[in-house]
Amino acid sequence: MCGGVGSRFWPYSREDRPKQFIDFLGTGRSLLQMSYDRILPLVPKENIIVVTNEKYAPLIREQLPELLPHNILLEPARRNTAPCIAWAAYHIAAIDPEASMIVAPSDHLITGENMYCECVSRGFEFVEAGDALLTLGITPVRPETGYGYIQIGAPVADDINKVKTFTEKPNLELAKVFLETGEFFWNAGIFLWKASSIINALRRYTPDLTALFDRGEGLFGTPGESDFISRNFGACPANSIDYAVMEKADNVYVECARFGWNDLGTWSSLYDNSPKDADSNVARGGNLVAYDSNGNIFVTPDGKLVVADGLKDYIVADAGDVLLICPKADEQRIKQMVNDVKMRFDEDYL
Amino acid sequence: MCGGVGSRFWPYSREDRPKQFIDFLGTGRSLLQMSYDRILPLVPKENIIVVTNEKYAPLIREQLPELLPHNILLEPARRNTAPCIAWAAYHIAAIDPEASMIVAPSDHLITGENMYCECVSRGFEFVEAGDALLTLGITPVRPETGYGYIQIGAPVADDINKVKTFTEKPNLELAKVFLETGEFFWNAGIFLWKASSIINALRRYTPDLTALFDRGEGLFGTPGESDFISRNFGACPANSIDYAVMEKADNVYVECARFGWNDLGTWSSLYDNSPKDADSNVARGGNLVAYDSNGNIFVTPDGKLVVADGLKDYIVADAGDVLLICPKADEQRIKQMVNDVKMRFDEDYL
Repeated sequence: MCGGVGSRFWPYSREDRPKQFIDFLGTGRSLLQMSYDRILPLVPKENIIVVTNEKYAPLIREQLPELLPHNILLEPARRNTAPCIAWAAYHIAAIDPEASMIVAPSDHLITGENMYCECVSRGFEFVEAGDALLTLGITPVRPETGYGYIQIGAPVADDINKVKTFTEKPNLELAKVFLETGEFFWNAGIFLWKASSIINALRRYTPDLTALFDRGEGLFGTPGESDFISRNFGACPANSIDYAVMEKADNVYVECARFGWNDLGTWSSLYDNSPKDADSNVARGGNLVAYDSNGNIFVTPDGKLVVADGLKDYIVADAGDVLLICPKADEQRIKQMVNDVKMRFDEDYL
Repeated sequence: MCGGVGSRFWPYSREDRPKQFIDFLGTGRSLLQMSYDRILPLVPKENIIVVTNEKYAPLIREQLPELLPHNILLEPARRNTAPCIAWAAYHIAAIDPEASMIVAPSDHLITGENMYCECVSRGFEFVEAGDALLTLGITPVRPETGYGYIQIGAPVADDINKVKTFTEKPNLELAKVFLETGEFFWNAGIFLWKASSIINALRRYTPDLTALFDRGEGLFGTPGESDFISRNFGACPANSIDYAVMEKADNVYVECARFGWNDLGTWSSLYDNSPKDADSNVARGGNLVAYDSNGNIFVTPDGKLVVADGLKDYIVADAGDVLLICPKADEQRIKQMVNDVKMRFDEDYL
């Protein structure tokens, strides 16, 4: 899944080059490329499919030239994850009705790739043996208030349990309780299932959506597919797969994963995952000369010099035509800022 | 006088385009151009001479195309104001031994140009009638601690007094006393005298300097002048005209001026002299969207958007390859910052 706009990282992430296409960690590979590299040992290249917004097609081709052109599914509109996953499942099921699939966001950070591979392999074995919707739950390592949590129920296999509840982002007090009980895992938005299992679940819990895709019967996996999507995808109701299916279905399981995971959903998470200097400053892209400044993250164009004095715990993001200076504690306001900028300057700076 | 480097305004003012060449107030004219415009009603065009460092010759020609080419005096080295003024005086005296002259910095702000013209005209009358070194003293309007002051002595003509003392920058308490007494005026570094008067004073108080220029007798005002300067100017001891002459001579007078004046020597003075929005922010060059931010000055490339949150009384200066973020209260540290940057990155960012 590669269609997000990454507005929380504006102005570093822009509408024409969102977060997943950026070399976010300065490794030389974008988050999308890292996601591709990670999945390559697990899924044959010809079975790796990228679903994205049609405006990002050139970026996908540029960053993943080895991806087969017909494995890029281009959404003509943004409709959240349920329609995206439904399309992919119909597409895959048309090619192989018995196929199983992993659904992976392309803009997250994962460390410990061996653990990841083991976990995903075990997950595939589990979903291929029955009719199960499996989500990966990440073992929490801190009382994070920015994530949703999954409470585990009865064990059904090694490291695999029934899901008891999905919970929204908790406050800090509750997050600490979650961490102590050992029953709660971070909801990473990574799913495994047979294509037929998710289509069945979608049919049951979002019949409007599947009714729409069912009209394309015989077209998926054929040259007529993209034309069908162009005409019909916009009519899909926008909905997340969590809300549409996962929180409703009764065949939902969680595999407890131990690899490192971060959704890089916030500047603070990028800060936390970046190397820091002696004053706990992160400088990405440019050179930093700092006085009485600590706990900041500076993201600037390559080679730019930042001289900072008297800044504590700020985000300083210079994107060439836009400069954002904002306390890390205020980063939840950035979406509102982007809206304000849009109101005042139209699309100029988005 | 147009040879300064303006390092206190780094990175907005750069070695290759210092403060006097910048459209500092967003009026469409640089400080140098404004200085030229201001002097034009007082001095015939063919008598306006610019003394600058030789590296700025192209900038002078670009900004003042109407200036006569032989009226640009190019210093091969930086030696402060005494050698600069000495050269100009020798040059002018060679053309007209009876000439009087005004010495004016090119990087200050002056408002009330009618008052300025009256003041300068009266000053010329005074210095042409005798052997006097006249400095303009600006009527202070606040207890400024960033300027030197002139204490007036006995009156000798309308608004013209003997100088009693020159004083260094006072602390705030003393500056308040200065303001109350009515005896103290800001030292603006604007001088009027006959060329012969200042040469005589230089001969008396800095004989080393005049000995050097006297060796060029017969060359000033001729094609041989620039070659002579190239070979000899570097040997001049660096010194200010205040220290070399004004604080020592006994024929020093001050004309009390009432026009508005600001040496634009600090970011705070630029802030004070710029229009502000409802939150007391100054935004120059770019567009500003501010939250919980006030008392700041933002200077950015044209059209750049700055989104600021939680900044109070900061300087934010974006010069393309350098971004400075610094509390206004710390601006006296900027010179040290420039030195630190030079140590770490050589000339890259100067």
